[in-house]
Amino acid sequence: MRLAELSRRSGIPTATIKYYLREGLLPPGRRVTATQAEYDDAHLQRLRLVRALIQVGGVPVASAREVLTALEDDSLDHNSRLGTAVWALPHGPEPSGDEVFQERAGRTVDALLARLGWNSAREYAAESPAHRMLVTAVAALARLGYPCTVEDLAPYARAGHQLAVTDLDLIERYESADEQLEAAVALTVLYEPVLLALRRIAQAQESHRRYGQRSTEE
Amino acid sequence: MRLAELSRRSGIPTATIKYYLREGLLPPGRRVTATQAEYDDAHLQRLRLVRALIQVGGVPVASAREVLTALEDDSLDHNSRLGTAVWALPHGPEPSGDEVFQERAGRTVDALLARLGWNSAREYAAESPAHRMLVTAVAALARLGYPCTVEDLAPYARAGHQLAVTDLDLIERYESADEQLEAAVALTVLYEPVLLALRRIAQAQESHRRYGQRSTEE
Repeated sequence: MRLAELSRRSGIPTATIKYYLREGLLPPGRRVTATQAEYDDAHLQRLRLVRALIQVGGVPVASAREVLTALEDDSLDHNSRLGTAVWALPHGPEPSGDEVFQERAGRTVDALLARLGWNSAREYAAESPAHRMLVTAVAALARLGYPCTVEDLAPYARAGHQLAVTDLDLIERYESADEQLEAAVALTVLYEPVLLALRRIAQAQESHRRYGQRSTEE
Repeated sequence: MRLAELSRRSGIPTATIKYYLREGLLPPGRRVTATQAEYDDAHLQRLRLVRALIQVGGVPVASAREVLTALEDDSLDHNSRLGTAVWALPHGPEPSGDEVFQERAGRTVDALLARLGWNSAREYAAESPAHRMLVTAVAALARLGYPCTVEDLAPYARAGHQLAVTDLDLIERYESADEQLEAAVALTVLYEPVLLALRRIAQAQESHRRYGQRSTEE
């Protein structure tokens, strides 16, 4: 298909598609004349992922390019490609300067992972951006004096594990390895607001159940 | 205590504290001379919450002010103050223009809440920003063709409910109603990155367990 049809079928303006092509987020089409190129279903599929990352997930263009590069890296096995792609996603703010809290949080997180038996997570801790994100978040809780012991964190980790099982079951519905990789990245990003919204709705629901119209004068 | 001591004990520069005072995020101290004011432990406590919201949670100043106003609104009961404060937190991007997907997602979310028996959540759906956030996130999934039926969403909702129970148990450790309200807002914000990081770590752990070093050539 030509650019105009790619735009029509994807619902993305041609100017935006050209921008994605220039930024290397979309592989070039097959040249047919000096000014025209031919695109196929793989381009349509790729556009969908780019939209999920950039337009919905708010992932910066440079990070999106890293994610896509990892997905296409034939030198890596399936699990490593997936890991590398998810690692290229943004992971929240960098650690602040407070090294004492950061180190202490690192020990708490290591104790948590040991307790859970998440041994490969412990093994790859030094390279994992999600691990750094967790340590930074725990350090922030500790610095402000909010609860964040291994016992406090364990129920959140158990919920995280259930979510991961649900995520991977969802991903396994896709047949080819390439589709699974793409879905893994897209669903990781797209289900984050679903999860955070459901937690807040459930908080309101549970608060209503526990406290109802409790007056402040009681 | 004077401003300098408030700064020392909170670890926040005096210029930042003055900014928070000007923006109404911190109530004024008790004037003792024309140029000096006296602050107390309530100021210290409030600064902690302001830091949690703004510096760690990235909540915009205007939203933080709304949250704090709701917490102090004596005309509301405990549950309503909490609800109003959490509703003033940011809830992700506004719905995009695609009304067909938005309406369809609204029906999916309503069916999900009915299935779960979350009746107060259904009742307050029209006013709840978390509900709007969920509908927008489900509409984005649908628009991009990713799985988002009631059956797909239900396990995430169950995880959300477990998290809410854990959250409220954590909050109930605080004794006074004011401390509970403050903790509820702070922990809602501060535990979000904890949860998202744990989900990603658990994904890598579970992916390693399922696929190990699976080669792409298999």
